Amino acid sequence: MSKTTFNELIEKIKSLKADLHGKDFLLTWEKSMEELELVLYVAEALRCMRENNISAKCFDSGLAISNFRDNSTRTRFSFQSACNLLGLEVADLDEGKSQIAHGETVRETANMISFMTDIIGIRDDMFLGAGNAYMREVGDALDDGFKNGVLQQRPGIVNLQCDIDHPTQSMADLLHLKHYFGSLENLKGKKIAMTWAYSPSYGKPLSVPQGIIGLMTRFGMKVELAYPEGYGLIPDVIEVAKKNAKASGGSFKVVNSMDTAFKNADIVYPKSWAPYTVMERRTELLTKNDSDGLKALEKECLANNAKFKNWECTEDKMKLTKNGSALYMHCLPADITDVSCKAGEVSASVFEKYRIETYKEASYKPDIIASMIMTNQFAKTHKILQKLYKKGNPRIDL
Amino acid sequence: MSKTTFNELIEKIKSLKADLHGKDFLLTWEKSMEELELVLYVAEALRCMRENNISAKCFDSGLAISNFRDNSTRTRFSFQSACNLLGLEVADLDEGKSQIAHGETVRETANMISFMTDIIGIRDDMFLGAGNAYMREVGDALDDGFKNGVLQQRPGIVNLQCDIDHPTQSMADLLHLKHYFGSLENLKGKKIAMTWAYSPSYGKPLSVPQGIIGLMTRFGMKVELAYPEGYGLIPDVIEVAKKNAKASGGSFKVVNSMDTAFKNADIVYPKSWAPYTVMERRTELLTKNDSDGLKALEKECLANNAKFKNWECTEDKMKLTKNGSALYMHCLPADITDVSCKAGEVSASVFEKYRIETYKEASYKPDIIASMIMTNQFAKTHKILQKLYKKGNPRIDL
Amino acid sequence: MSKTTFNELIEKIKSLKADLHGKDFLLTWEKSMEELELVLYVAEALRCMRENNISAKCFDSGLAISNFRDNSTRTRFSFQSACNLLGLEVADLDEGKSQIAHGETVRETANMISFMTDIIGIRDDMFLGAGNAYMREVGDALDDGFKNGVLQQRPGIVNLQCDIDHPTQSMADLLHLKHYFGSLENLKGKKIAMTWAYSPSYGKPLSVPQGIIGLMTRFGMKVELAYPEGYGLIPDVIEVAKKNAKASGGSFKVVNSMDTAFKNADIVYPKSWAPYTVMERRTELLTKNDSDGLKALEKECLANNAKFKNWECTEDKMKLTKNGSALYMHCLPADITDVSCKAGEVSASVFEKYRIETYKEASYKPDIIASMIMTNQFAKTHKILQKLYKKGNPRIDL
Repeated sequence: MSKTTFNELIEKIKSLKADLHGKDFLLTWEKSMEELELVLYVAEALRCMRENNISAKCFDSGLAISNFRDNSTRTRFSFQSACNLLGLEVADLDEGKSQIAHGETVRETANMISFMTDIIGIRDDMFLGAGNAYMREVGDALDDGFKNGVLQQRPGIVNLQCDIDHPTQSMADLLHLKHYFGSLENLKGKKIAMTWAYSPSYGKPLSVPQGIIGLMTRFGMKVELAYPEGYGLIPDVIEVAKKNAKASGGSFKVVNSMDTAFKNADIVYPKSWAPYTVMERRTELLTKNDSDGLKALEKECLANNAKFKNWECTEDKMKLTKNGSALYMHCLPADITDVSCKAGEVSASVFEKYRIETYKEASYKPDIIASMIMTNQFAKTHKILQKLYKKGNPRIDL
Repeated sequence: MSKTTFNELIEKIKSLKADLHGKDFLLTWEKSMEELELVLYVAEALRCMRENNISAKCFDSGLAISNFRDNSTRTRFSFQSACNLLGLEVADLDEGKSQIAHGETVRETANMISFMTDIIGIRDDMFLGAGNAYMREVGDALDDGFKNGVLQQRPGIVNLQCDIDHPTQSMADLLHLKHYFGSLENLKGKKIAMTWAYSPSYGKPLSVPQGIIGLMTRFGMKVELAYPEGYGLIPDVIEVAKKNAKASGGSFKVVNSMDTAFKNADIVYPKSWAPYTVMERRTELLTKNDSDGLKALEKECLANNAKFKNWECTEDKMKLTKNGSALYMHCLPADITDVSCKAGEVSASVFEKYRIETYKEASYKPDIIASMIMTNQFAKTHKILQKLYKKGNPRIDL
Repeated sequence: MSKTTFNELIEKIKSLKADLHGKDFLLTWEKSMEELELVLYVAEALRCMRENNISAKCFDSGLAISNFRDNSTRTRFSFQSACNLLGLEVADLDEGKSQIAHGETVRETANMISFMTDIIGIRDDMFLGAGNAYMREVGDALDDGFKNGVLQQRPGIVNLQCDIDHPTQSMADLLHLKHYFGSLENLKGKKIAMTWAYSPSYGKPLSVPQGIIGLMTRFGMKVELAYPEGYGLIPDVIEVAKKNAKASGGSFKVVNSMDTAFKNADIVYPKSWAPYTVMERRTELLTKNDSDGLKALEKECLANNAKFKNWECTEDKMKLTKNGSALYMHCLPADITDVSCKAGEVSASVFEKYRIETYKEASYKPDIIASMIMTNQFAKTHKILQKLYKKGNPRIDL
């Protein structure tokens, strides 16, 4: 990072009319364009500083709580990395080891873990209609505790994936696109194919495709969503994407063919998910703890999936894209044919060609999360960044 | 915090003839009155500093080990918050992930985890006669290792709940009372009803009621312990409470009626527990790994509990208290009728009225634990507090 | 620590032609003599600093990942202590809580957890032929990610026990011997008996005896390996030990009698392990998930072990050693007769006599690991040590 680059980012941040201070980050479409840009630029400034061995520690102490209600590797480590970078220590709320089973309310737990907590990161993507709602319930409880003098500070909430959106993923993806194509401006008019792909597993969350169509439509992109008939997303999010595209001068289209979506695409994002309607039935069965019903549903769905094994991102399909060289994206881990499974979302040769790019895509997640924490905690982000930059404490004392 | 308040606390701390340096905190009744006051004032000073964004980090590095032999949310997060506030990193001794099953001695494990450890927090409340004894065994092992040059420092031990006492809870409760009633002096003559209450579960530890009667009798309070016949506490602790009350000019009485205890009470603390004699039988069965016996005991006890469903803290019962407005306390989570269970310790309306107060009560636990750590580690606590205050490093670099 | 001692260590470190910067620590026999000395002296310098309350924090932030594929207490806490001492925060890669089960490649996971990671510590000792190979696979993946711009830094790897070596254990053992006998020079010509001993369990790893014979033969010691016929180690490591002994002017001998090995020994290290050939069969069965086969193998092996119950380190056996007072060593936990089992590796009286010495032996492990991290991360270790020493920040702010 030349000093100019850092200073340029600071100038951009200063110029934005964006205020995320004290606001939870739950859905990208609740944020203004300038707020999204703020998150991107702060993430870039933090990455610049780390590359130049400049400490970004702005917390002397403080806890960041992670609450993973589903498995995670990438997001878990990204969250821990981001918190560590800023000086927060992660305390994991492992609901199995807690007294929460006693029938304690969300309202109570939220306060009990927050006396010295600055940030809470939540992943809750198993139940349709539940994950995002849970985050808001936690937020309301924190507001109540703060207002009533229980909490000295109101911890911010970062959505680490819910039933509706996966903002840390989609924002990292966006930052990757910004770097790959040179600027946000350059994304205008680019075609991105967000398409369903075959997987031998079932029940994969909808949050990634929903997050992508909900975010990329903001930036004037031509977003084409493709899936086999019956594999639709939550209707409300489809409406959001339509509205976004209209406002940004982009477009949003739903098709039922991978080939159509790939045609002339600048970017392809082939990824499996379970149909919205299946997720609804699954949520019902999970709630009723109906394991026979769940098994039957799984069997039915896998059989249905199997009809669409040709929804695989192969070399041939890639030839349909712009100059045969669209950027392949994935949130990882991908189901790679002959690597992680017999038949999957992507062929081994396509994946291998873009493997390093997908790793780089993932590498933005810690920066994005750190930025979401910083913009939540500090009213004037450029000031704290400048202060840290000027102080110039080395991250490693070389 | 005005500077005056902080300085007043420092003056109070300086004036105390109290020395907790290098001493484990296992039972409140092993500590002198001035030592208990020291813990309270240091906790208040630390809270003041945090409210004013002044760092209390007095450790540059160092581990704090937590050893939870029973589930925990509140105490786990309070311990982690306290350690983080002072600069210690928590390492959890998860006995399931360790080699301890190999038949390793307590003496050995205690030393093996302590080479760079400053504090060990232990929760062990499952077996009557075992938890507190285990803490002392760990303490003896640490003395042995330190004396023989194995350890550079002798880590302090904080009792995070045992079979006998729950000092971090009772001291947090006391700090809450001090703030609610204005001063320790004001607690003299106040009536506190520590009463059994109905719960649909069984086997709840005795440490909270024992901790309360063992501590509140030190401060000239009128402590009334109420339970249905047969639900007695450990006889030795009853004797402690009697002796304390005599020495402090307060009183201690056991009654078998919730109404009697509530009558004219300034404070009520309705909370379920298993009878001492049941805990003895349970300990025996657990030791023998007799699961049939345990099931039979549970059935018997739940049936017995069910006879006392009227031991519930209702609006009507609250009317019996001083001006009908006694302070309701609970260590949380409470069994709330129609919220966390069909019939429980407290009615929903009473709990809701005092909900914020119970959250505040809980909020003192991190401060109390941080104080117990600091007074264990530093000979002159006022000096380190003054030094940190003067340095004035911000907790968040605003 | 007098200033002289610290300065003497610095001078020694400066004089060494050793470069461990950016190199993983996987096997002691891949390192030069001066590199091993570097690790020892840096460990001693770090211990000196800690004894004098001087902070060794050279990382402002950064993650250290631990990946324990087998249970651990000592090594887990040693790793955490070492990281904490230097300013790194440990993030545990618990493969059960991750998405790794999805069939993700080692190559991918290694990169995904490393965006802000400086050190990765791995224990993988269950499968013969697999543990060390896994560490190298991780290393290759990190090289690939770093080379391709995925990672800002290439995290170093520390072997926390594999199928072949246990370098943090053997180096801690060596440091203990250096202190016990006064110097590395004094170890020349000393006889160490690394002998098998009876244990009621089976399947103990080979890494400790292999680590000991692979390291102690470097320092001119007379290494005698003793085991009942059929309990051999990996043949390649035997060859390493032979070659080492030749080069260092020491000796290496294999015998089938504990008495022979103990005769005139200066040091005895009686410890159980499973025969190399059994580990091969076990690995095969584990790979095939053949639980019946595993049970049968265990039964056969325990029966075989039982023939050698007299391979116990007793007072009588100790009388055979040099002046009847050889130093007893163990990596702990030991199987102690009448303490942790009915019949084990060592009698209670012998163990008790040397108990404190074994604890001291273990106490060097955090220092050794911290040294391995530091020498991996810093090109000129003496410079960073001198800088920290001169700065003199207190570890505890007394």
